[in-house]
Amino acid sequence: MLVRVCPGADPDAVRHSLEALGLWVTRYDERGGETVLFRVGPHSRRVEPEAVRRLPGVAGIAEPPSPHPLVDRHPASVEVGGVPIGAGAPPVLMAGPCAVESPEQIDRAAARVAAAGAAFLRGGAFKPRSSPYSFEGWGTRALGWLSEAARRHGLRVVTEALSEADVDAVAEHADLVQIGSRNMQNMALLRRAASCGRPILLKRGMAAGIRDWLLAAEHLLAHGAPAVVFCERGIRGFDESTRNLLDLGAVALLAEVHRLPVVVDPSHALGRRDLIRPLARAALAAGAHGLLVETHDAPEGALSDAPQALPPEEFAALASEVTASGRAGAAR
Amino acid sequence: MLVRVCPGADPDAVRHSLEALGLWVTRYDERGGETVLFRVGPHSRRVEPEAVRRLPGVAGIAEPPSPHPLVDRHPASVEVGGVPIGAGAPPVLMAGPCAVESPEQIDRAAARVAAAGAAFLRGGAFKPRSSPYSFEGWGTRALGWLSEAARRHGLRVVTEALSEADVDAVAEHADLVQIGSRNMQNMALLRRAASCGRPILLKRGMAAGIRDWLLAAEHLLAHGAPAVVFCERGIRGFDESTRNLLDLGAVALLAEVHRLPVVVDPSHALGRRDLIRPLARAALAAGAHGLLVETHDAPEGALSDAPQALPPEEFAALASEVTASGRAGAAR
Amino acid sequence: MLVRVCPGADPDAVRHSLEALGLWVTRYDERGGETVLFRVGPHSRRVEPEAVRRLPGVAGIAEPPSPHPLVDRHPASVEVGGVPIGAGAPPVLMAGPCAVESPEQIDRAAARVAAAGAAFLRGGAFKPRSSPYSFEGWGTRALGWLSEAARRHGLRVVTEALSEADVDAVAEHADLVQIGSRNMQNMALLRRAASCGRPILLKRGMAAGIRDWLLAAEHLLAHGAPAVVFCERGIRGFDESTRNLLDLGAVALLAEVHRLPVVVDPSHALGRRDLIRPLARAALAAGAHGLLVETHDAPEGALSDAPQALPPEEFAALASEVTASGRAGAAR
Amino acid sequence: MLVRVCPGADPDAVRHSLEALGLWVTRYDERGGETVLFRVGPHSRRVEPEAVRRLPGVAGIAEPPSPHPLVDRHPASVEVGGVPIGAGAPPVLMAGPCAVESPEQIDRAAARVAAAGAAFLRGGAFKPRSSPYSFEGWGTRALGWLSEAARRHGLRVVTEALSEADVDAVAEHADLVQIGSRNMQNMALLRRAASCGRPILLKRGMAAGIRDWLLAAEHLLAHGAPAVVFCERGIRGFDESTRNLLDLGAVALLAEVHRLPVVVDPSHALGRRDLIRPLARAALAAGAHGLLVETHDAPEGALSDAPQALPPEEFAALASEVTASGRAGAAR
Repeated sequence: MLVRVCPGADPDAVRHSLEALGLWVTRYDERGGETVLFRVGPHSRRVEPEAVRRLPGVAGIAEPPSPHPLVDRHPASVEVGGVPIGAGAPPVLMAGPCAVESPEQIDRAAARVAAAGAAFLRGGAFKPRSSPYSFEGWGTRALGWLSEAARRHGLRVVTEALSEADVDAVAEHADLVQIGSRNMQNMALLRRAASCGRPILLKRGMAAGIRDWLLAAEHLLAHGAPAVVFCERGIRGFDESTRNLLDLGAVALLAEVHRLPVVVDPSHALGRRDLIRPLARAALAAGAHGLLVETHDAPEGALSDAPQALPPEEFAALASEVTASGRAGAAR
Repeated sequence: MLVRVCPGADPDAVRHSLEALGLWVTRYDERGGETVLFRVGPHSRRVEPEAVRRLPGVAGIAEPPSPHPLVDRHPASVEVGGVPIGAGAPPVLMAGPCAVESPEQIDRAAARVAAAGAAFLRGGAFKPRSSPYSFEGWGTRALGWLSEAARRHGLRVVTEALSEADVDAVAEHADLVQIGSRNMQNMALLRRAASCGRPILLKRGMAAGIRDWLLAAEHLLAHGAPAVVFCERGIRGFDESTRNLLDLGAVALLAEVHRLPVVVDPSHALGRRDLIRPLARAALAAGAHGLLVETHDAPEGALSDAPQALPPEEFAALASEVTASGRAGAAR
Repeated sequence: MLVRVCPGADPDAVRHSLEALGLWVTRYDERGGETVLFRVGPHSRRVEPEAVRRLPGVAGIAEPPSPHPLVDRHPASVEVGGVPIGAGAPPVLMAGPCAVESPEQIDRAAARVAAAGAAFLRGGAFKPRSSPYSFEGWGTRALGWLSEAARRHGLRVVTEALSEADVDAVAEHADLVQIGSRNMQNMALLRRAASCGRPILLKRGMAAGIRDWLLAAEHLLAHGAPAVVFCERGIRGFDESTRNLLDLGAVALLAEVHRLPVVVDPSHALGRRDLIRPLARAALAAGAHGLLVETHDAPEGALSDAPQALPPEEFAALASEVTASGRAGAAR
Repeated sequence: MLVRVCPGADPDAVRHSLEALGLWVTRYDERGGETVLFRVGPHSRRVEPEAVRRLPGVAGIAEPPSPHPLVDRHPASVEVGGVPIGAGAPPVLMAGPCAVESPEQIDRAAARVAAAGAAFLRGGAFKPRSSPYSFEGWGTRALGWLSEAARRHGLRVVTEALSEADVDAVAEHADLVQIGSRNMQNMALLRRAASCGRPILLKRGMAAGIRDWLLAAEHLLAHGAPAVVFCERGIRGFDESTRNLLDLGAVALLAEVHRLPVVVDPSHALGRRDLIRPLARAALAAGAHGLLVETHDAPEGALSDAPQALPPEEFAALASEVTASGRAGAAR
């Protein structure tokens, strides 16, 4: 925002009023003129523009048009398969194995996560892998195993679409179609997924600024997506003791300032099984509306990501915390 | 850690056992030999070395000596001016203005933060500023104003030492001597501060890895510091809507895995007044043992950092959450 | 690499020999045993494994299998449309406008860059844009305009494929099919592009480590791509005065250590027109085998990225430096 | 910069003129008013403000005052001990071992680097080390060994001051006093070093933006430093195959846009001995005015940083390239 000072008003007094509102400002003096402007810095507190315009000494304010008008109008809470996600709703738990490995494996997982209070079953049919020689998922038939297991245990399905060619098959089986972090700016996939009719879980890219993330959602909404749920899963950091850097400031910003539904994936964020629980708690405390967690009945036999999958007892403990926090919220 | 496989054992079986423990591993085969080794990756779950050594098929394990043996032996909880900080203690609140501006200002702040439940009064006598033309603090005399205000209201003092030459004066007035993030690797200051007899609050540098941070603490302990309290305040990020990137994964790692006392400064982390509260909650949920928060009686007249100082009513609300969380913890 | 010390040999002497070779090492002592191992750190100089194995006191060495065996066997130089790119070849210049705007515009650009010594014409038919409301290119028909202009002026074509659905059309018109940085880990597109029969220009993702980049190339080669030319275009940095961070260390690493063909895009790297020339020179000095540069006949009317397009006279000056450096190389 | 559009002028025409100059702009429309402003983005090409003010349709321009007026007036070239460094001068070579280890070692090094064409001898008397258990230098007496060796072989001295207490001793022996990257924002040391009378070599901090770096220089100049030579040595990156990320965009920016003397340390940047030469070439091509290089007569016996020290023959080859490039520059 730019703030123009009234001719004759004291610019320093205007500066103090702006700072007292929580705004970081820089002063611009017009060359050879009298006009004084303040530019409000990017990490200032959100304020109502009219509150600034009415300050003594302020002649006018100017803002650029929002680059993401549809995101700005997106509701703070959405329903996905009948489950509310977002402001005012209890935290939603989405859980399951990294990959759908067999009908039996995913059915056991579904039974277990449903009993623990999860609303969504996760599991990859198509796995994006850094190496072309890693297990890449069982593909379309795994979608069937996944959705049958979910229906059988009263769960909704969230799973990733990797290819434009698979979007329809994924949409047929999933309540929530996931766009992975590697594809956050895959515009062709965004466009294709937007038109499949399902709400989208949009994971943040590892180098994506907040604006990039919101603009990717704008792509989805502009091409017809009914709703977007954001998912923070860690961005590129520089410390190897935690694989990625979980940016809970971004989560708070989306939840509290932009008023958008946002969940957190603490499993991929750090890669460390021993820190999933504290980070899951922190995510909810920062304002996240749900969690996406990897759990496996028998990590020693998992086909992918075994070290970060929570074993059953650790998952149960996490899930009971999440449901207790939901009840506590409802009681307030 | 390196894990040597028994000659004749099945390396794949050993791999599965290691992954089931939550360890990421890479296999090394000795050239022209039979020896198979696994290297445990850096973001693996912490395990007892003996648990690995006793796995079937494991012939031996090797670890490098810790680069920070004194930090490894540091207690999980310390007492500073009679106030416990760390594992098992209720969360500690350290609060006050960015800078000590006058005897009256700091006394009002002390009264207010004491009433809200803070145990420590913060306030800068020496301010490190990016610009040489910004207010740099009132120096030594501000130390007196600060400590008198604190004593009068039953608070302890935490304040920063910027120069080797000022360490003794700071130590005379402070219960906890702060090393700022710009000085985390200022070895001369670390050495000087280590010998002043006071515990040290060690803020993380903006580009410091966890190992760098622990090694800075090792410098302090090796030169005689009685105790170190770590403070995360945001590292360098790439998104301008939050000034820095608050790394709560690092906080969880220090609190849960390294078992060290760690507090969080949510004021400097984001620079956004509207996100201090959710991030403060998240910090405690991630395992932080306390908070360092900026608050000012009249932000519109503050000499520095006004936009990020919490006004009295917002601070009071935050403080009552912290004290409630402390009572809840005690009741458990 | 892991280095096992001979029983009875002096580990410190082995350490000194390893360090003298340019290797950073960490010592591991087996618990309750005699075995001493050194792990060679990641930013060590490349050495022949046999040179290490033959050092006095070394009992054996172990390395993990390469995760990218096809990349390791990729030639240091490739021919694309008859133009050699890579070690030993003169630097190749790829130039043209950001977007193909009209048959006339691209023909004028082709005439101009051909006259200046470029071997490839660049120009986007499909443009990945952060905003869904920006100009996204004229699509398939622009491919025809582009390839006709190129043929008319004796140039090869490099242009980006954004969607799996467009790969065949792009391959029909392009000598070198570009995968953009946003799609570096779009596995479905990589797989599809790999089978189109054309060599691929693989831009580095903004958060991609070297290993991620090489693994993306491994995906291409494993699915049939005849050759890969790497392109560094700046990664995510934290300083806004240069839009991205051009990583010439990575370029030197690919060119000198991995012996792979690599070019640099200085236009997208910094976003600053006034620094394109010094960075272009630096890229070639670091070992890059060519440049990908945006130039526009009339930047004031460009449909996208006008501020970073070189105007004709500045482009001509850059091109004459590149061709002079090619002749100087040939004369040596 | 803010650009105010004349009432009645076509804002789109003004936008095109600004973009054609190489400026990235964002449009701001005043609420309920007619005023249109453009904000010029941070990675725009540098232009003369008057050139913008004279564009058709521009009513006025406004800029914030520079936060570093003394840096803005700093000459593009300075003399240190009679050696010119900066624009117009041949590239200067500063070389020597990581640490001063003995009178004999530093004398041999001095003889060798002088013969190769270096103008400055480097070598640490005080070494900042991440671990308190590493060799920290021989201190004050090493300063004498260093300066005697330099004088004997016609070299100037550059060496680091770590502590406020050592500044005077360092200044007595050094022609150029180095502030290390860990201390770039150690304000007490900057102030103390500024008043020692010697020019300062200011290494960039690992998380320092360009503005932070220039402001650190402003601190030096505001407290009396006669001159500052900037030194880029790699910032924090995320890829472990190169230890740090050498930011040659920043070097070009300082040399070409800010017109300040800047040198590059390729030894610390990557940590890889095999990439020092290509990066040194690239640094000079990007506009650097000199190089700071580590070389050791017998790396296998070095007390610190052995793996990154160039052995004599590799250093000689690098030095002859630098001196040749100096002669080529002079001949032009």
